[in-house]
Amino acid sequence: MSDRADIAIIGAGAFGTALACVVARRGQRVDLVGRNKQKIADIEASRLHPFLPRDAPLPAGVSATADPACLQTASIVLFAVPSQALRETARDYRTRIADDAALVICAKGIEQESGRFLSDVLHREIPGHDVAALSGPGFAADIVRRLPTAMTIACSSPDQAAMLSQRLSGETFRLYSSTDVAGVQIGGALKNVMAIACGVVEGRGLGESARAALIARGLAELGRFAAAHGGRPQTVAGLSGLGDLVLTATSHQSRNMRFGVALGQGEAPQNLLAPGKPLAEGAYTARIAAQMADSENIVMPITQAVAAILDGALSIDGAIEALMNRPLTTEID
Amino acid sequence: MSDRADIAIIGAGAFGTALACVVARRGQRVDLVGRNKQKIADIEASRLHPFLPRDAPLPAGVSATADPACLQTASIVLFAVPSQALRETARDYRTRIADDAALVICAKGIEQESGRFLSDVLHREIPGHDVAALSGPGFAADIVRRLPTAMTIACSSPDQAAMLSQRLSGETFRLYSSTDVAGVQIGGALKNVMAIACGVVEGRGLGESARAALIARGLAELGRFAAAHGGRPQTVAGLSGLGDLVLTATSHQSRNMRFGVALGQGEAPQNLLAPGKPLAEGAYTARIAAQMADSENIVMPITQAVAAILDGALSIDGAIEALMNRPLTTEID
Repeated sequence: MSDRADIAIIGAGAFGTALACVVARRGQRVDLVGRNKQKIADIEASRLHPFLPRDAPLPAGVSATADPACLQTASIVLFAVPSQALRETARDYRTRIADDAALVICAKGIEQESGRFLSDVLHREIPGHDVAALSGPGFAADIVRRLPTAMTIACSSPDQAAMLSQRLSGETFRLYSSTDVAGVQIGGALKNVMAIACGVVEGRGLGESARAALIARGLAELGRFAAAHGGRPQTVAGLSGLGDLVLTATSHQSRNMRFGVALGQGEAPQNLLAPGKPLAEGAYTARIAAQMADSENIVMPITQAVAAILDGALSIDGAIEALMNRPLTTEID
Repeated sequence: MSDRADIAIIGAGAFGTALACVVARRGQRVDLVGRNKQKIADIEASRLHPFLPRDAPLPAGVSATADPACLQTASIVLFAVPSQALRETARDYRTRIADDAALVICAKGIEQESGRFLSDVLHREIPGHDVAALSGPGFAADIVRRLPTAMTIACSSPDQAAMLSQRLSGETFRLYSSTDVAGVQIGGALKNVMAIACGVVEGRGLGESARAALIARGLAELGRFAAAHGGRPQTVAGLSGLGDLVLTATSHQSRNMRFGVALGQGEAPQNLLAPGKPLAEGAYTARIAAQMADSENIVMPITQAVAAILDGALSIDGAIEALMNRPLTTEID
């Protein structure tokens, strides 16, 4: 084990910490960098994270630190921060990052203010680096507990994607490589919209057949959106879009799903979106994606229905009726 | 409403009866043809089916009958019988069916004895007809209760597929048309294998992330199998493969899922496969598909793991280890 860590993870949340465990279990040193000094000191001293299982302490190879100086030696820097915090985090740390470091985004979403994909945000804030996106179905607790997990890591350079897959995979944590950075990000972001729709179906008591059909037809929308933005429909039918959607839409651990269930049970959208309420990322993504679908003529009836419900322009029953009464069509067009 | 029914459904099980309700609710007459005279007489008299909700009686347009003479006037004949009974049913009724009738298969599976797709079976037993396949996520009870449901109907002729979609769709039952008869059948048959695998994951306590990854990677196998058999990978990522898999793999109503859960909990395969035990279609499909994958060089590690577990050639933990230790690869190859 070398003295200095070659891998750094910015963001000591549950997911970033779980990734640090995977990397360290393979005998690699990893720095887990956070801003909150007290929280970081607690993690470093206790070898435990407040949101992760207590029976799986951090391996010795993980150093939790609030000192960004450690970033200098890292050839791989992962950003495991919420999507809306990515730009600010990049600005805070960019002078500390080595010129040839590969950057990896672990967040899922679209920047609300700009409507940009997170890889664009990072390219703009820290130019000149390879930027990869890591996404897919992986609960941090499952990863830490060594339950089998698979995700996708995408980078425009196939060699770089393969290298990252090798360096970041673990015994029970398998990373598939891809060159479709757009598709992987679209899968990760737009599945939140479909998770809200699945929540509505559940909250309104529409049945398991309806939910399954919604996931399949939602996936068709993700595929069309990906194709229109330089991504591949097959990518969103993989771990990042479909796999993550299945995980989100069948688990009540998801905030987007719970948001949809509340809507389906009759809660008013404006109450759910009031300031101070927990953020459902998909609510923002729905609006941005619906606007993009409108202006780019992408057929996305479910996304547009979710956006219309959130804006109060359509009732849930009205949305269902509209979806069922669309002209009959081919499955793939 | 014309005097004679133009649509006939052979097989008065829950699904066939649910379809009859959809068709009759739109003002079309439909004959529901079964062999068991007492059961058919009970359905006709009570307007209820023993496996369907009692608050949704059969509409007046449905005639349940054991007399195959009614088939003569039907321009659309649906076969809603179990896949292993299709050949015999076709032989029993073929002389009664009009020469220009379109035939629709509602069963999902591969004929065990021959390893053939059901459309092949029907083409051989009743030559000279258009054969369509109807598949996707639709519980009969959900359909009868008018909950939103969507499925796919595939026929090699796009006009015929569109006609069938128009004739058989209902207000809350939406049929998407497709020309990919192979893909739709492969989706319907192979999803049962993945449902067993998902059951194993659940029975063994491997977590929700593992199940989601399995569904995504299983879908990649279905896509490769479809491509090798003249189908389209996009089709199995639609209602018939993916949608149906999501429904099956997240619901304990599925026999295949329950079979997998029992395996995962340590039940011996030979006990579960003993004569007299309820049939898990996917157990047979797994073996046939694994053999085909072997001889045709299709990469299907999950299908082969399920087949090896059923044959006692691999333990569940051995299968998981083998799946996780495969060389790291790209997501789409």
